[in-house]
Amino acid sequence: MADVTLHADERIDQLYSKQVQIIQSSQVFAFSLDAVLLGDFAQVAKGAKSQIVDLCAGNGAVGLFVSAKTHGHITAVEIQPRLADMAERSVILNDLTVQMTVLNEDLLKITQQLPKDSVDTVLCNPPYFKDQPQSVKNPNPHLAIARHELSANLDQILAVTSDLLKMNGKAYFVHRPERLDELFTLMQTHRLAPKRLRFVHPKADREANMVLIEMIKDGKPNGVRILPPLVVYHADGTYGKEVHTLLYGETKA
Amino acid sequence: MADVTLHADERIDQLYSKQVQIIQSSQVFAFSLDAVLLGDFAQVAKGAKSQIVDLCAGNGAVGLFVSAKTHGHITAVEIQPRLADMAERSVILNDLTVQMTVLNEDLLKITQQLPKDSVDTVLCNPPYFKDQPQSVKNPNPHLAIARHELSANLDQILAVTSDLLKMNGKAYFVHRPERLDELFTLMQTHRLAPKRLRFVHPKADREANMVLIEMIKDGKPNGVRILPPLVVYHADGTYGKEVHTLLYGETKA
Repeated sequence: MADVTLHADERIDQLYSKQVQIIQSSQVFAFSLDAVLLGDFAQVAKGAKSQIVDLCAGNGAVGLFVSAKTHGHITAVEIQPRLADMAERSVILNDLTVQMTVLNEDLLKITQQLPKDSVDTVLCNPPYFKDQPQSVKNPNPHLAIARHELSANLDQILAVTSDLLKMNGKAYFVHRPERLDELFTLMQTHRLAPKRLRFVHPKADREANMVLIEMIKDGKPNGVRILPPLVVYHADGTYGKEVHTLLYGETKA
Repeated sequence: MADVTLHADERIDQLYSKQVQIIQSSQVFAFSLDAVLLGDFAQVAKGAKSQIVDLCAGNGAVGLFVSAKTHGHITAVEIQPRLADMAERSVILNDLTVQMTVLNEDLLKITQQLPKDSVDTVLCNPPYFKDQPQSVKNPNPHLAIARHELSANLDQILAVTSDLLKMNGKAYFVHRPERLDELFTLMQTHRLAPKRLRFVHPKADREANMVLIEMIKDGKPNGVRILPPLVVYHADGTYGKEVHTLLYGETKA
């Protein structure tokens, strides 16, 4: 691993199952289980000529997680300079400077830099909450932008996703189930057909609090598949086998 | 229970958990697990003045299943005379002639008999498959109409559902997950907001093969709840606890 400079508030976390190290800061951004699950769910294009784009990339976690699954190029797009800089240093830390590029750019302007209809796979862990006047936002602007739709909303993000993707290119999003109706409506608006959904339940007897979704540009309708549920915790509060393996890698029985 | 005449091909099945007996015929129509799960999932309006309508009622199973959950009136609408007659005799068999009415009618004309904006709860286990020229249909016309959209399609059924419902009335459908995208699009077209979804998986590690969905007329968007998954069978092929209880009633431990 290459040497990088860490700021005072930063730490390096390792996702053991993926052998990647990621610069984190609880003060500005730290990836959560959502990013880990999205990276695992995404079936990114594998070939050396593949183009993979991570929108709303934050500290670059999702792109870093999928890097071992593809020979293609990964572009992480992040609007916040502080987070893009963290992502850039994590790319260096993991010796991925050839495979992965970080763009500190507004995704709404990204087609000025990345050609339309050129991308094989789009990844996105977008802000979950609408920017409503009455909504309580995090006073920390870094966290507020990551969680609320302050710089781009779902409609705009899906429009860019569709613009970037080649025909039959795939996008992988993680979102909240509450917005599933809006998500379906906007996918249709932007020529993205839902293909596979996986709901994430904290426990087997609890409602889902996350949905992972695969969509395909110009895909046919009425081919939705609902994967087996992903249950995060056992009833006793310990991690379920699948999540445990994702976080800590395979362990001997 | 009252005496009724059974035809040669008919039998009486009991759903033990609900204490109702239902006239079935494998030659023309027999309810399946889908109807049992829909009857259980539906939170029908309870009051004595409530109006509950079961569309695509078949042999009346869903209406009969929910009869013990409400003091309201249940109207079962079925286009096939043979099935409507079975439903009618099951109503008599269960001494429910005061609470439940069977209309042998085309649901597309039902608002000539049932006023618009008058119904509290609509129930529907619709035909699952599109009527496509190339699709293989059951040579038995009774079963073909129950399974393929020969006499009404999802768009028409949701239009009638919306017409019948009062504002904030609720509808409960069971359908195939493949058509979830079309279902969401058509619900929006017909002013029906999805509220609660429950996916039914044959086993915990298998994709869902059924979705139960609650919708509310003129409900707000972005309030979707994904209930805990319903897993039909244990890994060893025996019924899971929830389904076992639904089919056979509570058993002593």
